[in-house]
Amino acid sequence: MTAPTRILLLAHGSSDQRWCQTFEALAAPTLASLPEARVAYMELAEPSLETEVREAVTDGVANIQVVPLFLAAGRHLRKDVPAMLEDYRQRYGVDITLLPPIGEDPRLGLALRDIVQGTLEETHD
Amino acid sequence: MTAPTRILLLAHGSSDQRWCQTFEALAAPTLASLPEARVAYMELAEPSLETEVREAVTDGVANIQVVPLFLAAGRHLRKDVPAMLEDYRQRYGVDITLLPPIGEDPRLGLALRDIVQGTLEETHD
Repeated sequence: MTAPTRILLLAHGSSDQRWCQTFEALAAPTLASLPEARVAYMELAEPSLETEVREAVTDGVANIQVVPLFLAAGRHLRKDVPAMLEDYRQRYGVDITLLPPIGEDPRLGLALRDIVQGTLEETHD
Repeated sequence: MTAPTRILLLAHGSSDQRWCQTFEALAAPTLASLPEARVAYMELAEPSLETEVREAVTDGVANIQVVPLFLAAGRHLRKDVPAMLEDYRQRYGVDITLLPPIGEDPRLGLALRDIVQGTLEETHD
């Protein structure tokens, strides 16, 4: 059965493989829990956002939710990505929702606190 | 009593106040829990990294731990920030440790999974 919704975890992308590997590791728990989730890159790496939108359409997905793996919204999320998504909506006839960057979610702030506290404890051990 | 260690949560910075407000909100739970933590910006916003390093030295801090509020290490964290920190170490005679970007911490991947699962549940409600 095809999932009715596809989740695209959108990272910036880079020609540096280490950059992409960090995002793949970051996404791994989400991908393991949610079969409808995939990683896509805005630029400089594959799979691109457009590749993943096309793939979702081919799979019969009606709704795509884009979760930006960005801490905050700069020019890319305020201008470039919305323009790309508008283009894909028109060309592929698919419903696409751009969600806020993950850094705006209060749960990320709590995780940051835990990371910093953990780092301090490891330093003091 | 002065804390022996200062934690600097290092964000990129931007002339767009909304960018900085996102990082301040992201850092808020950490700042509330850890009095030795501060936010600093690499460029384009205040307080700058150098301002906060100088402030730590003035406060008698012997060791500064820099926690990059970046999801992955690109040119900034591989080249620019290490060069800035080496300059500050020499000029201010303070011990500074650059920690990995928060996106490399497995706890952030678990938080991402929770955020995406939460988003799906809210969408389905």
